Amino acid sequence: MADPSCSAEFPVAGSAAKGTPAAEILCIGTELLLGTILNGNARWLAEELAAQGLPHYRQTVVGDNRERLIQAVRECAGRCSLLVCTGGLGPTPDDLTTEALAAAFGAPLQERPEVWADISAKLSGRGRPVAASNRKQALLPVGAQVLPNPTGTAPGMIWSPRPGFSVLTFPGVPAEMRAMWQGTAVGWLSRQGFAGGVFQSRLLRFWGIGESSLAEQVDDLLALENPTVAPYAGAGEVKLRLTARAATAAAARSLLVPVEAELRERTGLLCFGADDDSLASVVLELLRQRRQTLAVAESCTGGGLGAALAGVAGASDVFLGGVISYSNRIKQELLEVPTALLTAHGAVSKAVALAMAEGVRCRLGSDWAVAVTGIAGPDGGSADKPVGLVHFAVAGPDGSVAAPVRFGAQRGRAWIQTLSVGEALNQLRLRLVGSNG
Amino acid sequence: MADPSCSAEFPVAGSAAKGTPAAEILCIGTELLLGTILNGNARWLAEELAAQGLPHYRQTVVGDNRERLIQAVRECAGRCSLLVCTGGLGPTPDDLTTEALAAAFGAPLQERPEVWADISAKLSGRGRPVAASNRKQALLPVGAQVLPNPTGTAPGMIWSPRPGFSVLTFPGVPAEMRAMWQGTAVGWLSRQGFAGGVFQSRLLRFWGIGESSLAEQVDDLLALENPTVAPYAGAGEVKLRLTARAATAAAARSLLVPVEAELRERTGLLCFGADDDSLASVVLELLRQRRQTLAVAESCTGGGLGAALAGVAGASDVFLGGVISYSNRIKQELLEVPTALLTAHGAVSKAVALAMAEGVRCRLGSDWAVAVTGIAGPDGGSADKPVGLVHFAVAGPDGSVAAPVRFGAQRGRAWIQTLSVGEALNQLRLRLVGSNG
Repeated sequence: MADPSCSAEFPVAGSAAKGTPAAEILCIGTELLLGTILNGNARWLAEELAAQGLPHYRQTVVGDNRERLIQAVRECAGRCSLLVCTGGLGPTPDDLTTEALAAAFGAPLQERPEVWADISAKLSGRGRPVAASNRKQALLPVGAQVLPNPTGTAPGMIWSPRPGFSVLTFPGVPAEMRAMWQGTAVGWLSRQGFAGGVFQSRLLRFWGIGESSLAEQVDDLLALENPTVAPYAGAGEVKLRLTARAATAAAARSLLVPVEAELRERTGLLCFGADDDSLASVVLELLRQRRQTLAVAESCTGGGLGAALAGVAGASDVFLGGVISYSNRIKQELLEVPTALLTAHGAVSKAVALAMAEGVRCRLGSDWAVAVTGIAGPDGGSADKPVGLVHFAVAGPDGSVAAPVRFGAQRGRAWIQTLSVGEALNQLRLRLVGSNG
Repeated sequence: MADPSCSAEFPVAGSAAKGTPAAEILCIGTELLLGTILNGNARWLAEELAAQGLPHYRQTVVGDNRERLIQAVRECAGRCSLLVCTGGLGPTPDDLTTEALAAAFGAPLQERPEVWADISAKLSGRGRPVAASNRKQALLPVGAQVLPNPTGTAPGMIWSPRPGFSVLTFPGVPAEMRAMWQGTAVGWLSRQGFAGGVFQSRLLRFWGIGESSLAEQVDDLLALENPTVAPYAGAGEVKLRLTARAATAAAARSLLVPVEAELRERTGLLCFGADDDSLASVVLELLRQRRQTLAVAESCTGGGLGAALAGVAGASDVFLGGVISYSNRIKQELLEVPTALLTAHGAVSKAVALAMAEGVRCRLGSDWAVAVTGIAGPDGGSADKPVGLVHFAVAGPDGSVAAPVRFGAQRGRAWIQTLSVGEALNQLRLRLVGSNG
């Protein structure tokens, strides 16, 4: 229901280029400042704002302190047209949001009888006592519109304390906030004409190239304005996020298509997937299409390669399992790696990697097998075989191939193990796409 | 090395009550505004600041935009004495942090030959090309001190552009940031006298109890002022962080001792360790002391249990390896689980869990073995055996015991797999501490 105080006109108060109103997120809660919890609400709202085509350029976190909250609100109001607040709507003394917002704009609070009746009914219905402390949850600034809370107690509000600026408040409980955003806020934003177009996004994923080298290959595309192309580094993986803006989702998606095509053309097999793909999911899908199965033989990764595969729902039509041959005796007894090989070359060698891959392929009766044997550190390295040296082998219907990688010792055991899992999956992927069924 | 521009004197510029300088966190990165990633860095740093006894009252997130970054930096500098920044230190055009900080305070940038030499050596050592774009990573404002990056390419900096205000910069990659914080920043903060007094911190770790239940058991202790006791929830694990403040480290530590003792007395075996302990490291140490070995048999966890053990340096004196029996055929062929059992009870059953544990113990010749078989979801559940039902078995010299857990389906596959790994380790731990060698 449109509230006359929620002006449909949004003069440019610190808005973004091209006159589009900008939004900001303000998360309130001392638990965020203590590091007790991750700020999942900010991430979720950020994604929602992007999907609604609302540019947003800043997020702020403050604690349950009235004065600092008032200060932060006033600063945000000086910059943006829409402030989305989470937290501080509960009944305890720490919950200050509504009162601080009213004070920030010098507005009186007013008890809303219908809200108090609703809160009382909800609590009684749940067999909870109705406490005096709950009464403050029915106080809203004069002129504010109730933002109903279908799953929790306290409502939020939609309030425009002055022209060109609106504030939406939500509880900090994620499920309640999301239900209120989707149930009420999205529709209100749309009717108010906030969204300046729609954003669509596409994430391309790469393995086998560093962030700066990839950026150089595509540096002209990094300068594009719509879509934008932004690089991100992960653990061994590099990503490019493409973001396009248009009047409709379909139009935005069509802007992405040629840029994605150009990027894939230039990077070839370095690009292993997009969006929610992982090396594991991509490999499993390649094998699923060929109706082939996979087993793993792991030494230094200890089971991490199998875990990455098992992490993908539906892995069981492809992934049979494997052997974690952490000790050499297990390599011999379960994988039938010849003692002579271990003696002559050591566990961390091309020969043993090949024997492990072929051994597990044979024992488990899989079409394909991947083996990993290396030195994760920090101990165990030598001049010949330094920490970070890892041998990989891929055994398949057409034979076995081994390739070592030197990850370096600097980044530590966990890094070497994580990168080894990715590298093993990538070597299998390249073998599969190269061999074309 | 003390840099004369890093003033040891900190006049109160927007500091907190009691004259203690306040810190703020500024996270830089458009991926945070797009909601692409969770802000794990802010949470980690917030916990660290609390452990160091540094009050902090605000966190800010901005994107890779030079003007908005400069504006945000100037605002923070007007409020706090210490600004901790993450992100924007890479070689791509989006990486603006150092340049924006210099511009915010009108300081010239200066190429540091030793930093450039270090960056070039690191990249060459990894077999990566040294790109022209990497060169800007060697530019720092005049007067800034290098904050070395032991695991990545770009260093950060420690810089006091004016009296009463210092800024520390870190990459956005979490592992790099944490290594630099722990390796350099903590010591620098301590020497600069930032912490108002000396703080000592102790983290107690619990498995098998929920955060609110634990909080209720210790609610009187949560109200203590020195030490403070703060609860944190993780994935299955709950932590209590004790932080004590005194004139000396020794005095602070002695304040922690009775509170830790009281907490351990009240919680008994629910507390599995402290500080950097993990369930895996604790289990490995218990077995190491007994000179006993361990093998694993994994179905739904796919290798994650083995990976958790292999993640601990020195695991190889205890952990032999195991079998990832993802498919039922592998359970039969490698673990000798009788077909009749699989037919009668199904793979997810007490009987099969016991057979898997005994089978791998026998095959690998270990003293102890743990088996996990369950339904990780989202598919595969039924009325009798819902998603989240996981059977565990522990086989040892004195026999085998099995116990199931129902994790529920709500939190998804990855959560069920992660909690299963912890639960498996914890069941073994309880068996070991119960049997006293």
